[in-house]
Amino acid sequence: MPILRTSPASPFGRKVRIAAAVAGLSDRIRIEAADTNDANDALRQQNPLGKIPTLLLDDGEPLYDSRVIVEYLNEAAATPVLVPPGPGRLAVLRHQALADGLLDACILQVYEGRYRPPELRGEQWLAHQRGKMERALAHLATHHAVPGTGVPHIGEIAQACALGYLDLRFAGAWRTEHPALVAWLQDFAARVPAYALTAPTA
Amino acid sequence: MPILRTSPASPFGRKVRIAAAVAGLSDRIRIEAADTNDANDALRQQNPLGKIPTLLLDDGEPLYDSRVIVEYLNEAAATPVLVPPGPGRLAVLRHQALADGLLDACILQVYEGRYRPPELRGEQWLAHQRGKMERALAHLATHHAVPGTGVPHIGEIAQACALGYLDLRFAGAWRTEHPALVAWLQDFAARVPAYALTAPTA
Repeated sequence: MPILRTSPASPFGRKVRIAAAVAGLSDRIRIEAADTNDANDALRQQNPLGKIPTLLLDDGEPLYDSRVIVEYLNEAAATPVLVPPGPGRLAVLRHQALADGLLDACILQVYEGRYRPPELRGEQWLAHQRGKMERALAHLATHHAVPGTGVPHIGEIAQACALGYLDLRFAGAWRTEHPALVAWLQDFAARVPAYALTAPTA
Repeated sequence: MPILRTSPASPFGRKVRIAAAVAGLSDRIRIEAADTNDANDALRQQNPLGKIPTLLLDDGEPLYDSRVIVEYLNEAAATPVLVPPGPGRLAVLRHQALADGLLDACILQVYEGRYRPPELRGEQWLAHQRGKMERALAHLATHHAVPGTGVPHIGEIAQACALGYLDLRFAGAWRTEHPALVAWLQDFAARVPAYALTAPTA
């Protein structure tokens, strides 16, 4: 059975876990914790970038990053619901890229605290990432706040995970600014039980 | 005609330009310079993340990031040579993800100098990114230094762009450590004229 190396708070790991659930594959993947900061964790042999999530296939081959794992899940599913083929395919992938990029901008702000002492924090860098975060949120609120129907695609899943990460690390400040996205996330959570089941623990 | 917003030194822009050439689509895309640091550049409206490359389609729809643009090129090509379908597809995508991740680790080191004054540079952060860079290079040298044949796939193209970026920004120090990759890149450049044609200008 494939093994997913991840951690409970990883937003990209959450994306893959929700994607697996939506694709009907949760029972066919085993979760195994990984510590990205532990040089002795086998993760750095499995993925030279030392990043999670990393999926270990039955033949020992690793798959990374999260988008490649999503392609695997999409192929392994009975129907390719995560990235539906057809004319809307690239729009779904762009939606995922935007949500992933929003996450990257959030994570770089969090890492500013994690990987350097307070006296080395850089306001210019933080403002640069905050700009990306704010523009991405505004774009999602304008273009992607209409509740979806049926099985969510990977763009919606990635968006939910980005908003969930904002709740975890940025005290939900986005909620005041973007009520349309709050309503969207509430609807997503009601439609997709895996969202609550994968709620991060800090 | 689709417009590619990029800059001459962008390694992900180079990846897309080489991919377009390999897919036989160079004549069907117009290049337009973009300045990621200019808040007045339309780029931030076209892509809320403010990142290059961003491709503007004829109907005005933007596509990003580079991987999504590559999927577009792969679909638009006469044959899907960039990401060939079949059993090797996920390995090609993983290869691209590794090269992209290597690039990210390099770029974050470069940005440390670009977005903060010298007194705010963080040795712990730089070492963290250097570790990713060194492990990724070692992995590529062990597993991806056998010269390819025929039309290169996107994993090979991404690897060449990552090594080209190391030449540009890290003074080619990787060349001493990894002669097998030096030979690989020489072969790639001989096979793929677009590599020299897209050589970055700092």
